[in-house]
Amino acid sequence: MSDVVSLLAQIEDTGRDTRGPGYQRAGFSNTERELRDWFLAEAARRGLDTEVDDNGITWAWATAPGDNAVVTGSHLDSVPGGGAFDGPLGVASALAAFDELKTSGALERAKRPLALAVFPEEEGSRFGVACLGSRLITGAIEADRALGLTDANGDTFADVARGYGLDPNRIGTDKARLEKVGSFIELHVEQGIGLINTDQAVAIGSSIIGHGRWHFAFSGQGNHAGTTPMSHRADPVVAASRVIGDIPTLAAATDASAVATVGRTLIHPGGTNVIASGMSFWVDIRHADDAVVKQVLEAISQRAREHAEGAGVEVSISQESYSPTTYFTAELNSRLTSVLPDAPLLPSGAGHDAGILAPHVPSAMLYVRNPTGVSHAPEEACEDDDQRAGVSALVKVLEGELEVAS
Amino acid sequence: MSDVVSLLAQIEDTGRDTRGPGYQRAGFSNTERELRDWFLAEAARRGLDTEVDDNGITWAWATAPGDNAVVTGSHLDSVPGGGAFDGPLGVASALAAFDELKTSGALERAKRPLALAVFPEEEGSRFGVACLGSRLITGAIEADRALGLTDANGDTFADVARGYGLDPNRIGTDKARLEKVGSFIELHVEQGIGLINTDQAVAIGSSIIGHGRWHFAFSGQGNHAGTTPMSHRADPVVAASRVIGDIPTLAAATDASAVATVGRTLIHPGGTNVIASGMSFWVDIRHADDAVVKQVLEAISQRAREHAEGAGVEVSISQESYSPTTYFTAELNSRLTSVLPDAPLLPSGAGHDAGILAPHVPSAMLYVRNPTGVSHAPEEACEDDDQRAGVSALVKVLEGELEVAS
Repeated sequence: MSDVVSLLAQIEDTGRDTRGPGYQRAGFSNTERELRDWFLAEAARRGLDTEVDDNGITWAWATAPGDNAVVTGSHLDSVPGGGAFDGPLGVASALAAFDELKTSGALERAKRPLALAVFPEEEGSRFGVACLGSRLITGAIEADRALGLTDANGDTFADVARGYGLDPNRIGTDKARLEKVGSFIELHVEQGIGLINTDQAVAIGSSIIGHGRWHFAFSGQGNHAGTTPMSHRADPVVAASRVIGDIPTLAAATDASAVATVGRTLIHPGGTNVIASGMSFWVDIRHADDAVVKQVLEAISQRAREHAEGAGVEVSISQESYSPTTYFTAELNSRLTSVLPDAPLLPSGAGHDAGILAPHVPSAMLYVRNPTGVSHAPEEACEDDDQRAGVSALVKVLEGELEVAS
Repeated sequence: MSDVVSLLAQIEDTGRDTRGPGYQRAGFSNTERELRDWFLAEAARRGLDTEVDDNGITWAWATAPGDNAVVTGSHLDSVPGGGAFDGPLGVASALAAFDELKTSGALERAKRPLALAVFPEEEGSRFGVACLGSRLITGAIEADRALGLTDANGDTFADVARGYGLDPNRIGTDKARLEKVGSFIELHVEQGIGLINTDQAVAIGSSIIGHGRWHFAFSGQGNHAGTTPMSHRADPVVAASRVIGDIPTLAAATDASAVATVGRTLIHPGGTNVIASGMSFWVDIRHADDAVVKQVLEAISQRAREHAEGAGVEVSISQESYSPTTYFTAELNSRLTSVLPDAPLLPSGAGHDAGILAPHVPSAMLYVRNPTGVSHAPEEACEDDDQRAGVSALVKVLEGELEVAS
């Protein structure tokens, strides 16, 4: 069998971004399906029983499916231009950990079933809702709302899911399946600088800090770029850009550890010689204290109203998603700390399927050191030795869980 | 025969924007071809000889083609989300003026040939270069450069032109054809407020003010929106947005009648939860004094370097196009003034094919009142009576020209 480094090498050419470095592995795309099929083949090669459930989550059972199962896994999709490890490291580590548990005889001694899982559309890059698979199975998103989501091509999730082999009528909460999971452990590449200055390759997740996305839509008067005096304009691009330019200052003034980001905008109609009639941006705001998230949003909203008035345009603000700070399950985390006593506890600024599952199923996360601290970009990295250290930590955690007859 | 209002009604449903009000009539698209075919049919119905030349310019000869011809016409393409009159008003008015000249017997008395012309891709919305047809026939753009231009789909002009029925090997300067044109008169809807507060429906163009487009490209460090502290960011969206927000102030501080516009931006990779690695914008700057255009550009460039440094990102600035102020031909304009003594002289902030032809062929423009003053947007307007007044003015000008045996 292969170790985690060589497992990742098997998919290093799948979904490469043809326009630059990094990957394009959109949720429910042919590329995600290709990666899923790779996982299914690797699991089958190891003798695991595999199935794709009604929500597109892939399960590989190391033993007969049963109650109180120990489950580990992550996702295979990426953000546009993302790196090689965000998601796939946790899936490859799950396969590598299975190999070690089998070789060591731990599986034969296990008091609980073991399964590996792969969640679809974790990044939300395609339909705008992160962790779509785990939100569907837990009911954190209504099936009807999810089925009506559209991608950039205008295709609905219902249509795309059908093309992916799912039955839209069966998509949604699946309590029976969820109840079989006794604990879920997700290994993931670290997405910040939390481990760079330590001698530890692996950390244990403490929480996923609160985060949300809000949509700011400015509307003004479209006009000719050459014939309209500056004093006669109602240009939404000017107002929206002034707000975006002020966001770092507004976030820092609210709280030094708050983050607020605009990574996507939309201008209508978008001609070089056309004063736009509309501009939208989406702002992503995160902080461990949910009240601070609301304060940052309020500061940005107030500034948006001021700049809109100054430019003679209208602004409307709407919430697209919001998740309060989620703490991982205390009892499970204390067991992780006992088998990995040197691993620091780290909060995560990023959302994860483990965070969506946590209110329903005891859930935990392991983070593996990223020497660049860069995430959602091609510069994201993970040393080979750290990848192997991550698998060793995961094996210890799974061994411990498999022996707990809770 | 039909008057100008009913001629425009014939094409009012062609190329309507399905996403909102206004039109999508991109250059060299099926919609532009459909409009061209409408013009060809209307010309043929009137007994005119028609031809599409090597650069996609359509000619309809009211008499046998000959030297020193009087030519009138405009374009049929639109900016994205544009109005109904920008371009088509000049084409419909040319057909209506022909009808009046024929009925009045002026054509039989004419000492010069008369032709109607329609220029393709005037707006430059598809390939980024405005007045592409007139630039090609005059050599204002090299054929090789034009053939290599790409649209948003990545298709080259060479491929698109071939699909439009042109031979890429024959595209380019056509002096023989240009030398047949003795004077060119383009009627166009007014694109500003120049006639709103007058009792005149028609103005004579004095000049096309200098204008250019520059590309500002900011590059920083792509990263995760949730895990990267604000203090560790090199976010090109922040730097570029701050510059866009400052542009109105910088333009106004340089000269009260300078205009500078950002209507198009591009963010890479463009994910909501991704700090971008790059952001571009295009700025369109115009002023009658070419030195002022350069001063505005320099002020924006200086500010861009400051904001780039402040955000820890790089910026590069490049010129995409530049046209100095063009004055219409004095001798021809004095003849227009003598037949339309009440028409005010107006400079234009917008580029036109007549401005590209002016250095090569005596050229002039008539502007017809636009009660909203709005242009390049659905709110652009022209009253029926003003449309008819425009045709009457054009008829007077053409009658005068046809009797000049220069």
